[in-house]
Amino acid sequence: MAEHKSLNRLEAFSDGVFAIAITLLILEIKVPPIESIHSINDLVNALIHLWPSYFAFFYSFGGILIQWVFHHNIFCLLDRTSRPFLYANGFLLLTIVFFPFPTALLAEYINTEYAMPAIVFYGSVSVINAFAWFLFYHAIDKPKVLRTSAFSDELLNKIKRSNYFAFGIYTSATILAVWFPYTGLMINIALWLLWARLSLIEKE
Amino acid sequence: MAEHKSLNRLEAFSDGVFAIAITLLILEIKVPPIESIHSINDLVNALIHLWPSYFAFFYSFGGILIQWVFHHNIFCLLDRTSRPFLYANGFLLLTIVFFPFPTALLAEYINTEYAMPAIVFYGSVSVINAFAWFLFYHAIDKPKVLRTSAFSDELLNKIKRSNYFAFGIYTSATILAVWFPYTGLMINIALWLLWARLSLIEKE
Amino acid sequence: MAEHKSLNRLEAFSDGVFAIAITLLILEIKVPPIESIHSINDLVNALIHLWPSYFAFFYSFGGILIQWVFHHNIFCLLDRTSRPFLYANGFLLLTIVFFPFPTALLAEYINTEYAMPAIVFYGSVSVINAFAWFLFYHAIDKPKVLRTSAFSDELLNKIKRSNYFAFGIYTSATILAVWFPYTGLMINIALWLLWARLSLIEKE
Amino acid sequence: MAEHKSLNRLEAFSDGVFAIAITLLILEIKVPPIESIHSINDLVNALIHLWPSYFAFFYSFGGILIQWVFHHNIFCLLDRTSRPFLYANGFLLLTIVFFPFPTALLAEYINTEYAMPAIVFYGSVSVINAFAWFLFYHAIDKPKVLRTSAFSDELLNKIKRSNYFAFGIYTSATILAVWFPYTGLMINIALWLLWARLSLIEKE
Repeated sequence: MAEHKSLNRLEAFSDGVFAIAITLLILEIKVPPIESIHSINDLVNALIHLWPSYFAFFYSFGGILIQWVFHHNIFCLLDRTSRPFLYANGFLLLTIVFFPFPTALLAEYINTEYAMPAIVFYGSVSVINAFAWFLFYHAIDKPKVLRTSAFSDELLNKIKRSNYFAFGIYTSATILAVWFPYTGLMINIALWLLWARLSLIEKE
Repeated sequence: MAEHKSLNRLEAFSDGVFAIAITLLILEIKVPPIESIHSINDLVNALIHLWPSYFAFFYSFGGILIQWVFHHNIFCLLDRTSRPFLYANGFLLLTIVFFPFPTALLAEYINTEYAMPAIVFYGSVSVINAFAWFLFYHAIDKPKVLRTSAFSDELLNKIKRSNYFAFGIYTSATILAVWFPYTGLMINIALWLLWARLSLIEKE
Repeated sequence: MAEHKSLNRLEAFSDGVFAIAITLLILEIKVPPIESIHSINDLVNALIHLWPSYFAFFYSFGGILIQWVFHHNIFCLLDRTSRPFLYANGFLLLTIVFFPFPTALLAEYINTEYAMPAIVFYGSVSVINAFAWFLFYHAIDKPKVLRTSAFSDELLNKIKRSNYFAFGIYTSATILAVWFPYTGLMINIALWLLWARLSLIEKE
Repeated sequence: MAEHKSLNRLEAFSDGVFAIAITLLILEIKVPPIESIHSINDLVNALIHLWPSYFAFFYSFGGILIQWVFHHNIFCLLDRTSRPFLYANGFLLLTIVFFPFPTALLAEYINTEYAMPAIVFYGSVSVINAFAWFLFYHAIDKPKVLRTSAFSDELLNKIKRSNYFAFGIYTSATILAVWFPYTGLMINIALWLLWARLSLIEKE
């Protein structure tokens, strides 16, 4: 009972952090300052030229939402918690909470000639984020088994393999982005779409 | 059981996002900078001249609150969830989270001669928001029926018709706003009031 | 069952809004910009001269916290909800969400010669807030009785009388503040302390 | 029943506040303004020179997360609440909500010659935070015993002793920081690591 309550509260706290991180993303899109606007056309153009901000917002919103869906699905298959799991989950949340910063960085620099460091930085955060998922999956089984019987070894191994795969791709794409920033970014985006699709196909 | 828990968590996450988006609206109202104030009258005038910010805040607060009431009422009539529904709900939340930006835009430009693009932009977000509701209602029945027996086909069809109607009105009002910005805005506001009234009349 | 669930979700949403509004208050306290600091003493002085910000933060934090305690206690004595109650609660939340703005205003102007409009504005928000509580209490009984048997008529009347009293005091203090701003403010503060004390004495 | 519900809602509200405070920390890390960037190297350097912001973010995130874990563990061992406990918990939340400000202060000044006041200020907030925990533990037993039978006198005394110890260390480290700022800071950091480790070792 207490175990179960403890797990529920961890979920509620995690949901809160996911919800806030995903909502704070909007603060990155800034209203064009009125001093710079001298005609209706100016404002229309200013709103169009905010596309890097819209793009960064949608990209990160999608990324966090997909991760929330995964987190949600995993938690449905657990029935207890452990201290190491609390901290592994906490580290995962730290990487989620961090996303608004690289998102704002990407929005500011993606269509400038200094895009490379912004893309590499965003990629590095994705790598650390994938590593946090690795710790998260690890803490599900050690030191205590937290899974319900519905969460088979096979399923856990399958999920872990996807995670290794993601970790590898993010790392490669981020290194590649040092020379070919936009290619690296596109690989990252393709991966988001792949996750979303995978999670739609998987039987419930 | 797991189905039900999954639905509850989706509700909790959605509530968190609604609650944060509605609260972030206040950040758009900026304190008049002290450098621009040289007398008590200056400050009184500055506070009065913030009326576009107050208006935009109330307008968006009302809009998000009414949508939360609808969301809340629909969820009371569901008893399970599906992956497509998770993403349809996620897309709906994206449009909710986006509102603080057009709200701040409206506050900055509504009483300038550049109001048109701000009003059209706000209207376009409302159109996309209505479209997100369309996907949301669609995902209630496909690929899996998520409704309880208390949620009749008739009721769902009635709700969907209101949604088509709203979509049509928002689209027309937004197009109209290109030539008559304030008329377009007033139609939008009238629609909010209509929703609020409708939801009050409907039997519980 | 559905009634009860509906009430629980309303609580969760309200809690989220209270929690966010109370936390956003901290954004009003700004770090002294490094350009203005030329010695350790400068920074110490700058931190001391932030006292209006600390004061406004504590004052509003206390005010919102006390109201959350009241809200929490009332909800413990309800067992259903109604549409009008949803909107009355929504209007109450609107006034709660609004507080970060007058708080920032108070912080900026309280120790300047332009304090009067800031104090009167804060007072006016308190008056509207007290009015929102009035609607909230009203909606508990009309059009549907939402109370459990543990919530007696006598208790509701007692609470309503306190609310009338608060409404009267806030209104008077706010009008008084036009001529004697600091006296008006002190009456408001005294009232917060009184509420906190009252809620401590009342038997659980 | 009502008692239990009341406790659950207090947990939910507290979780919300913890979640928001921990997430707002990210707003302190500012994107380097594009006007100051004239080459890719400039941006790389600017991102590296943000290390005080990264450090302050991680440090405060860790501190709040550990406190959430403690809060969570204590609440699992309670089964009722009291008004004084509501306010003691409220005061604890106030100190948590306050952290984003000293965090931003630390980020701005830690690698300047004016670091001392920032470190002492952060330390003072930690002292007040430890004092809030003291009141929190006190309110668990007075005026009403809120513990379940699983929460022994022995355990409470052990926790209180750790709290006295923490209070003493934070106070000493903060006073020390007036003369040796970085030593004081390092003692504080060491203490967090110690808490995290302690909470991992303790049997579940």
